[in-house]
Amino acid sequence: MEVTNRYVATRHHIEGAPSEADFEVKEETARWSPDSGEVLVKNLYLSIDPYQLNRMKRSSASHLARIASYAIGEVVASASPEYAAGDVVAGVLGWEDYTLFTPSPAVLMGKLDASSGFPLSHHISVLGTSGMTAYGGLFEVCKPAKGEKVFVSAASGSVGLLAGQFAKLAGCYVVGCAGTKAKNVGGEMMEAVLANMNTYGRVALCGVISEYTGASRRAVPDLLEMIYKRITIRGFFAWDFLPKFAEYNAVIGDWVRQGKVQVIEDVSDGLENVPAAFVELFTGQNVGKKIVKLA
Amino acid sequence: MEVTNRYVATRHHIEGAPSEADFEVKEETARWSPDSGEVLVKNLYLSIDPYQLNRMKRSSASHLARIASYAIGEVVASASPEYAAGDVVAGVLGWEDYTLFTPSPAVLMGKLDASSGFPLSHHISVLGTSGMTAYGGLFEVCKPAKGEKVFVSAASGSVGLLAGQFAKLAGCYVVGCAGTKAKNVGGEMMEAVLANMNTYGRVALCGVISEYTGASRRAVPDLLEMIYKRITIRGFFAWDFLPKFAEYNAVIGDWVRQGKVQVIEDVSDGLENVPAAFVELFTGQNVGKKIVKLA
Repeated sequence: MEVTNRYVATRHHIEGAPSEADFEVKEETARWSPDSGEVLVKNLYLSIDPYQLNRMKRSSASHLARIASYAIGEVVASASPEYAAGDVVAGVLGWEDYTLFTPSPAVLMGKLDASSGFPLSHHISVLGTSGMTAYGGLFEVCKPAKGEKVFVSAASGSVGLLAGQFAKLAGCYVVGCAGTKAKNVGGEMMEAVLANMNTYGRVALCGVISEYTGASRRAVPDLLEMIYKRITIRGFFAWDFLPKFAEYNAVIGDWVRQGKVQVIEDVSDGLENVPAAFVELFTGQNVGKKIVKLA
Repeated sequence: MEVTNRYVATRHHIEGAPSEADFEVKEETARWSPDSGEVLVKNLYLSIDPYQLNRMKRSSASHLARIASYAIGEVVASASPEYAAGDVVAGVLGWEDYTLFTPSPAVLMGKLDASSGFPLSHHISVLGTSGMTAYGGLFEVCKPAKGEKVFVSAASGSVGLLAGQFAKLAGCYVVGCAGTKAKNVGGEMMEAVLANMNTYGRVALCGVISEYTGASRRAVPDLLEMIYKRITIRGFFAWDFLPKFAEYNAVIGDWVRQGKVQVIEDVSDGLENVPAAFVELFTGQNVGKKIVKLA
């Protein structure tokens, strides 16, 4: 089987904030054959995330002109007994119309349960990596007790919006901040937060968007304060919690069904609008999970 | 009972590195009476520690001209049933010949077992707060597995010397650094260490001596690196491990008896030499635990 595949590529390495001119939409022919062992997926929803910028830099060891992306797709053709045409899957696909992959234990491509009743897009927002980051960061890294105070930086972003709501459901007092181009977050905010933390405070560190573009000077933590207040800062990312993904989603899914968690998705249409959607992440204007819906 | 008590006092707030001229030895009459409820202790060994400088700064909330110090002393007179004349105690006393204290659960003043056979000075070095900091920081905060790599900053200081030896006993590969006035440690060393850490590395942060005097610029950690490598930085201090003090000392004491841990103490004589001993901590020349022996 042959399909015409459009994909978003970077024209060159990107340093600083990205612009639409850094990208182009290219075309190729993707070939699938029954003896390839491969699965051909037509992508439906693409996740647009700030961390992807790090892959586009000259310094990135894993730089590729084509951008991998957490996404939802539908199996069009399968040479694997594990997947059948019509299956809807979620995992690392790409900013493209079609993705070919070879199933293996290293390829984390989950089949979605169509009976769950959630909009498909939820599987890359609240029930995807954003939810996993927010839930794991809050409950595994920070482990807040009821009544504790939680500060969420970038509280209107895909992860922050959920972390703040999850913390309220856990009985915490929640304060958040959000950046706009005019009023930037970043190093200075981090320093202010550390200076105002309580004793035994925990910082779950999953992203530093202002550093991706060099938009603000870096944080200079007061290490003496960290000692006297016994502060812990821990870096992590979503995939650390993969073994608990199903467990998290059972809880989060219930919260969404009961209306206890509001899901905010910022959806653009069409592969050609991926660059614009991505660029918007860094202007401080988008609210909620940025998603591009394909055809 | 009245005794003439000499004590070391700061002449003024100290900013930057201390000098001997910042201190003076003063004299007063200390009065103890049988109905006071107080215990009068003649101090024998004083602990000289970098963190004490922070109490001498203008910014310190707990600034006092007289300096509290972990120390060993002998009870001279007691109006408390818990202590008797002749008892040897370890706890927070002061840079002075005699200290009066009122026993309470908040006063952590332990009686030493004379049958332990260790030199008294060991109870403020390897069996005191230095040992507790090194043991707790290594085994409670970092929890190294056999074969893991351990880096010790300020490896010739009172805590670092022990942390490095403890890590070797735990089967780790140990690298240390030590600063001299000419080749300063501090923020740049911290950045270099973070940049070279392995995935899932842990940083036990118990002191930042170069920041006490402003001797080097502050560290600017690469937070993105901390995320990708899932680094944890945790501030702590010795007293956090107080409930485990006896348990730690049982292990450490055995190591010392068996010659598995070398104890290096840098002992000066006489209260009048406390300022010089303290100043030396910040010139990068002292090796081992700095102690002043009285009378």
